Amino acid sequence: MKHKIKNKYDILKQKIYIIIYGSNTFAGKLFDLVLLGVILLSVLLVMLESVERLDSKYHTFIIVSEWIITVFFSLEYALRIICNKKPLKYIFSFYGIVDLISILPMYLSFFIPGSRVLSMVRALRLLRLFGILNLMHYVGQESHLKLALKASRTKIIVFVYFILIVSVLLGALMYLIEGKENGFTSIPTSIYWCIVTLTTVGYGDISPSTPLGQSIASLIMILGYGIIAVPTGIVTAEFSNLKRSKLDSKYKRNCPTCTTTIFDEDANYCYNCGQKLPNVYTK
Amino acid sequence: MKHKIKNKYDILKQKIYIIIYGSNTFAGKLFDLVLLGVILLSVLLVMLESVERLDSKYHTFIIVSEWIITVFFSLEYALRIICNKKPLKYIFSFYGIVDLISILPMYLSFFIPGSRVLSMVRALRLLRLFGILNLMHYVGQESHLKLALKASRTKIIVFVYFILIVSVLLGALMYLIEGKENGFTSIPTSIYWCIVTLTTVGYGDISPSTPLGQSIASLIMILGYGIIAVPTGIVTAEFSNLKRSKLDSKYKRNCPTCTTTIFDEDANYCYNCGQKLPNVYTK
Amino acid sequence: MKHKIKNKYDILKQKIYIIIYGSNTFAGKLFDLVLLGVILLSVLLVMLESVERLDSKYHTFIIVSEWIITVFFSLEYALRIICNKKPLKYIFSFYGIVDLISILPMYLSFFIPGSRVLSMVRALRLLRLFGILNLMHYVGQESHLKLALKASRTKIIVFVYFILIVSVLLGALMYLIEGKENGFTSIPTSIYWCIVTLTTVGYGDISPSTPLGQSIASLIMILGYGIIAVPTGIVTAEFSNLKRSKLDSKYKRNCPTCTTTIFDEDANYCYNCGQKLPNVYTK
Amino acid sequence: MKHKIKNKYDILKQKIYIIIYGSNTFAGKLFDLVLLGVILLSVLLVMLESVERLDSKYHTFIIVSEWIITVFFSLEYALRIICNKKPLKYIFSFYGIVDLISILPMYLSFFIPGSRVLSMVRALRLLRLFGILNLMHYVGQESHLKLALKASRTKIIVFVYFILIVSVLLGALMYLIEGKENGFTSIPTSIYWCIVTLTTVGYGDISPSTPLGQSIASLIMILGYGIIAVPTGIVTAEFSNLKRSKLDSKYKRNCPTCTTTIFDEDANYCYNCGQKLPNVYTK
Repeated sequence: MKHKIKNKYDILKQKIYIIIYGSNTFAGKLFDLVLLGVILLSVLLVMLESVERLDSKYHTFIIVSEWIITVFFSLEYALRIICNKKPLKYIFSFYGIVDLISILPMYLSFFIPGSRVLSMVRALRLLRLFGILNLMHYVGQESHLKLALKASRTKIIVFVYFILIVSVLLGALMYLIEGKENGFTSIPTSIYWCIVTLTTVGYGDISPSTPLGQSIASLIMILGYGIIAVPTGIVTAEFSNLKRSKLDSKYKRNCPTCTTTIFDEDANYCYNCGQKLPNVYTK
Repeated sequence: MKHKIKNKYDILKQKIYIIIYGSNTFAGKLFDLVLLGVILLSVLLVMLESVERLDSKYHTFIIVSEWIITVFFSLEYALRIICNKKPLKYIFSFYGIVDLISILPMYLSFFIPGSRVLSMVRALRLLRLFGILNLMHYVGQESHLKLALKASRTKIIVFVYFILIVSVLLGALMYLIEGKENGFTSIPTSIYWCIVTLTTVGYGDISPSTPLGQSIASLIMILGYGIIAVPTGIVTAEFSNLKRSKLDSKYKRNCPTCTTTIFDEDANYCYNCGQKLPNVYTK
Repeated sequence: MKHKIKNKYDILKQKIYIIIYGSNTFAGKLFDLVLLGVILLSVLLVMLESVERLDSKYHTFIIVSEWIITVFFSLEYALRIICNKKPLKYIFSFYGIVDLISILPMYLSFFIPGSRVLSMVRALRLLRLFGILNLMHYVGQESHLKLALKASRTKIIVFVYFILIVSVLLGALMYLIEGKENGFTSIPTSIYWCIVTLTTVGYGDISPSTPLGQSIASLIMILGYGIIAVPTGIVTAEFSNLKRSKLDSKYKRNCPTCTTTIFDEDANYCYNCGQKLPNVYTK
Repeated sequence: MKHKIKNKYDILKQKIYIIIYGSNTFAGKLFDLVLLGVILLSVLLVMLESVERLDSKYHTFIIVSEWIITVFFSLEYALRIICNKKPLKYIFSFYGIVDLISILPMYLSFFIPGSRVLSMVRALRLLRLFGILNLMHYVGQESHLKLALKASRTKIIVFVYFILIVSVLLGALMYLIEGKENGFTSIPTSIYWCIVTLTTVGYGDISPSTPLGQSIASLIMILGYGIIAVPTGIVTAEFSNLKRSKLDSKYKRNCPTCTTTIFDEDANYCYNCGQKLPNVYTK
């Protein structure tokens, strides 16, 4: 009899698993969308709480809502662990950690006041949308982006390292030229200014005022203008490349004898076994 | 006799239709250009009315001119409906709705003062210029742009969604670090600052002042600098792609003897087997 | 005898012509470099005159120098007309007009005080450097740039027109939302703000302060971020294209029978006359 | 006996050479990493010394640390010269000069107070990281970047020269329009503003306030928006190009029978005539 109950319990676990983790059934999709809505609501609530004017008016309402949502998230987290056959794998996965961090700050707020703001980390849960909309599956898109970024990663790290060294040198130079009286209060501040300028952000909280400083700043800007072309060039070349190799595979055929894949449109003979090829293209 | 009058009336409608909707006849082109001029004038008038110094001086002149133009637009709108054989199709088309919204605010200004500013929506009517200059027909241009944007749409939406989540997280982080006393008055404001920084706009109305805040801001800027490469890379790759595939496929033929694909427009003989080629293009 | 003198005079004119217009002889190159130096000096002088601190100190020196340079330029202009066989062609050419406008403001300053600043137009004469350094001849460079820009011209005009309409609409919207009290004093000012934001310049002289205004501004910035990809994509695609077609011509051969140029690397037979091709590549 | 000692000394020199210059042995790698850490520390110390709040607290500690590091660097510099067989080659190499300049400012600070700031030039020594991580060897990366930049160098110089002339002209124009009372105090300042605007940095320390000035500024911004596409286009095209030609030429072979060019790395048989291919690659 105990076996029977356990079986029922197993079936329930299985059902919950499908609803919580899956998004192919109606219930699963509904759960995902409701969850996403609640996450969005919860992020908005934490955001609004930080707005003094709104917080003073609706403080109780916001706090109560946040607690309700946190309890809901806690239950969901518990269910995710219980109904999963490999709970540890979930707990230490990216989403498992994010889910835990999403509920902790609220409980911590009993001991450390103000830690509630950390609930903002819930925004990371919104990344689940890609999974729900099958955009993860949309391999041609997601992986394209990732492949291009992966291929250009080393180049971009080298580039950023180089930019940082340039910023340190130019920052120190501007500190010498402009000096404390013109807002370049220290070398770190000057380096901050240099990055603000090189990236063309240009807040204007610090800006050169001596003629020499303005001249060098102009050079830095034109440098930054040219420099922006480099990461763009790297990433674009990778994208174009991925695109092309995909395009090239348009005329892909398989050799009927040795099953080698042939990309050349003009091929008459299999380049692997020398077999005459049929002229039927797989589009 | 009634039939005869109706006929005359039909012919008149037909003539007006050609003038208003067409742009191939001289009268049609003239009407289009005059209309465009009046739209431009009307947009300028609404703009100038908002400039206090000018409004106080020329108030009566501006108001009278706006009314004259509105009456002209109302007549035009009526004519467009009357002379069109499928008036409903026009009314609910993009331009039909824009034309209606362009005249409504003036009449509404009797009941709701200040609604006249909404007449600015007339600027949308300026898009008609593309039709007049046959730039719509200029398919190689217009559709190229649209195809490239359409092909990269999903990727760009995914990208923007990702950027927004990053902005929310970084905004909350900067709110914690800088705090209310340094201008980061609330999380929404911090997120606004983060978008201002990531997009390299950098107003400077809010800017970090603590050393830690400036360090993280520097990282955000360099991140934004790298991130700008992504949409550029996506769109450029699509453009290059469209360009190439268009170039490649325009004159594609297969040799009837050896089935080699020939891309050259001018080819008379197969370059592989020397066989005379037919002049039938596969588009 | 008169004929003889005229001949001598003609030879002198010819010699001056080679010095002034040419840059292949030593004297011609020297003249060009000296001229360029004087132009640079003259532009610097007008610039420095506008700096009050320097002008009050060196006023007489600057004015005298400017007059000497102007007299030198006037003589040069006269010589250019005299020694040229087709003086009118020079006078109405781009450089002819620039040369005239470069000297006029100084003489006009007798009648209109302050017109001396217009001498800054002399900076245009610095474009001659391209001619001197044979960068004009550097066809692969100059014309590449020009061809790419020419090919993408219509697309870019369509794009700018579209951006302007979007700016007008968004400017009017922000004027309604933010209003005069937040710096959006009129619709033209709001449109100016919108262009400052869309182009990611972001002065910060005007910036939204209402929550709704900041939200819409954030959207405009992200829009601007995406939009920047479009002209970059257009120009890059054109560049890549030009590059590729140049690359393609690497395997260019001429048919020995009909002299048709063949680009296909794999071609065995001329596609124009069916003649067997030799396998000698012109690199 | 003297010979023996000299030999021992030579062996020691050889050992030190391998440790200091090489990075393949354990000791060499350790030395490089420790050196890099000390350089980073030293740069941080000079930076922190410039922060008044920190300097007043830890002045003695910072000064003593800087002196210890400088002595360490001096010893290292001496060792590098001593153990090198061609000391002059090192002394006049890029890193030799940087190493010398890195230690000089500290000693100079006895005579010229404040020259210690120049120690920031030590940041250049951080470039050694590329050598340590074998990123220099990573030829596909480093040289790619360099080749692309080298190929587009002339184009970019022409472009920058052109931008400068445009800035000078537009700067002078804005000086005339806006004038001293609106912050455009002189032509050099106006040119500085113009570069700030064209590069989309936009500090906002100077910004137009007259309607005409704002209109022209808007045009300059849109111009700058279009102009940014040019260097990006140039560099991207070069990158794509390098990528493609590298891909294309890597495995190029010709069929010995029919001379068809084969790009496939894995090809055993010619795809045109079915002939067995040799496995000799033409690199």
